[in-house]
Amino acid sequence: MELNSYLKHHLGRVDKALDTYLPGESVLPPALHKAMRYSVFAGGKRLRPILMIAASEAVGGDSELVLPVACALEMIHTYSLIHDDLPAMDDDDFRRGRPTNHKVFGEATAILAGDALLTEAFILLSHPEVLPGVAAETRCRVIHTIARCAGSQGMVGGQVVDMESEGREISFPTLEYIHTRKTGALMLASIQAGAMVGGCDEEAFRALTRYGEAAGLAFQIADDILDVVGDQALLGKDVGSDQQRGKATYPALLGLEAARDRAVELRDLANEALAPFGERAEPLRQIAHYIVDRTS
Amino acid sequence: MELNSYLKHHLGRVDKALDTYLPGESVLPPALHKAMRYSVFAGGKRLRPILMIAASEAVGGDSELVLPVACALEMIHTYSLIHDDLPAMDDDDFRRGRPTNHKVFGEATAILAGDALLTEAFILLSHPEVLPGVAAETRCRVIHTIARCAGSQGMVGGQVVDMESEGREISFPTLEYIHTRKTGALMLASIQAGAMVGGCDEEAFRALTRYGEAAGLAFQIADDILDVVGDQALLGKDVGSDQQRGKATYPALLGLEAARDRAVELRDLANEALAPFGERAEPLRQIAHYIVDRTS
Repeated sequence: MELNSYLKHHLGRVDKALDTYLPGESVLPPALHKAMRYSVFAGGKRLRPILMIAASEAVGGDSELVLPVACALEMIHTYSLIHDDLPAMDDDDFRRGRPTNHKVFGEATAILAGDALLTEAFILLSHPEVLPGVAAETRCRVIHTIARCAGSQGMVGGQVVDMESEGREISFPTLEYIHTRKTGALMLASIQAGAMVGGCDEEAFRALTRYGEAAGLAFQIADDILDVVGDQALLGKDVGSDQQRGKATYPALLGLEAARDRAVELRDLANEALAPFGERAEPLRQIAHYIVDRTS
Repeated sequence: MELNSYLKHHLGRVDKALDTYLPGESVLPPALHKAMRYSVFAGGKRLRPILMIAASEAVGGDSELVLPVACALEMIHTYSLIHDDLPAMDDDDFRRGRPTNHKVFGEATAILAGDALLTEAFILLSHPEVLPGVAAETRCRVIHTIARCAGSQGMVGGQVVDMESEGREISFPTLEYIHTRKTGALMLASIQAGAMVGGCDEEAFRALTRYGEAAGLAFQIADDILDVVGDQALLGKDVGSDQQRGKATYPALLGLEAARDRAVELRDLANEALAPFGERAEPLRQIAHYIVDRTS
């Protein structure tokens, strides 16, 4: 397989499905649905949905079945970006080269668009007609897994500790706490939900969990590194913003070389966990490489 | 039955259950869990959870079974209050006589505490051990109903239109749109979820839906009226704040007397829907009266 065409193919599928599942711009209230769609269709790479599809394929699942779940996860990811960018949080004016949600729609609508996207994810995940082939028991497990990863001891918890740590010296365990939760938790949820909907057994679930944990952390370390050495034009955001904000990062704590080594080590660890899946895990394998080597 | 002791009894049960289901203040990150608990335990009347318990009892359900669902709904209600109070929204410094969440914990933590409470509700609703007696199919239906009522075409949608309407002349249909969604939707969800978990048939579900729609709207009209004629000390908030903000209300659009008549009419409509349930619906009946006659 060729990774670029794999990513492009599934990005197209995910975008089309998101367009189907999100309420249209003319649905009342239009201002809210416009704001929700503005950020969902802001040029995301759909990495989390594609990870979910690839995990489902690795256990022999039908990727058509997992598509709505993948869209729900992307809605949660998008809500977290909208809220992260708010003036009270990171106060970012641009994301991927476009004005952030609150710059276009105002702060109040941006907060509510985030709230609505998070809620919409659970509307979709519990929809009786959208997931006809997935047993209710499995749907509940998927909802539980995704909600836990997104909640106060997952993504939101990571964001709180990240904010608390700005401008402070923090320990390595605190840095790992932030990274495994703020970004890692939702990536792990993608992998685990894909495995569940794909119909995995316990052993496969454990192996893919190891992959998801390692790949999620590798992704965030690569992100930290890109913030130091990345190309501003490719990234669509300012380079050096972590340092400016006094954010704790892997390069800041370990140095650039050691951070790179750690990312490569985690990538290899992730891929070792894929051994039992053979050829079917090839997309996951290549995505782990992509995560560490990407330039944006 | 005596309504006051009924309300007090179930308020105690709900508070105790909320304390069990919410992560403790020492759970990482403590600042977040403190902020979440601060607003959940800010002296709410637990009207929505109690409506859910009463609806479950009306169809012969076990109120023990519905308690976690009732707690999840109260978490969603609390998140909506935290976000409504934010500077970018209603900019309120006090609620029920205590400083609002962002005044105590800062704006960023308040936003995240709201996000985490909304997410926590879905963690709870999908928990495999907390709802052992409720079939997964029913849990999915309950999640779907609650999420829809809370989402972009429910509560959040109502909040957006409410904001858009501030300081403007609005039509009566727009006012009803706001009221049935901003407050009504979550009260309807309480009733419907209680009925589902209680094991109702289709006919009972439709009857209780009629009750929930009417009682929810009556509640908001009574709220509008209290903002004009209420006792500031009993309410724990400023009287006349709707008018100051140029908010559209029933008294402003219809006049005080006609608004009162409409609330009483809706109360009677709600109670007519309870006829088939006999004695078991006595709590719901008395709550409808309480909703319209309350002083705080």
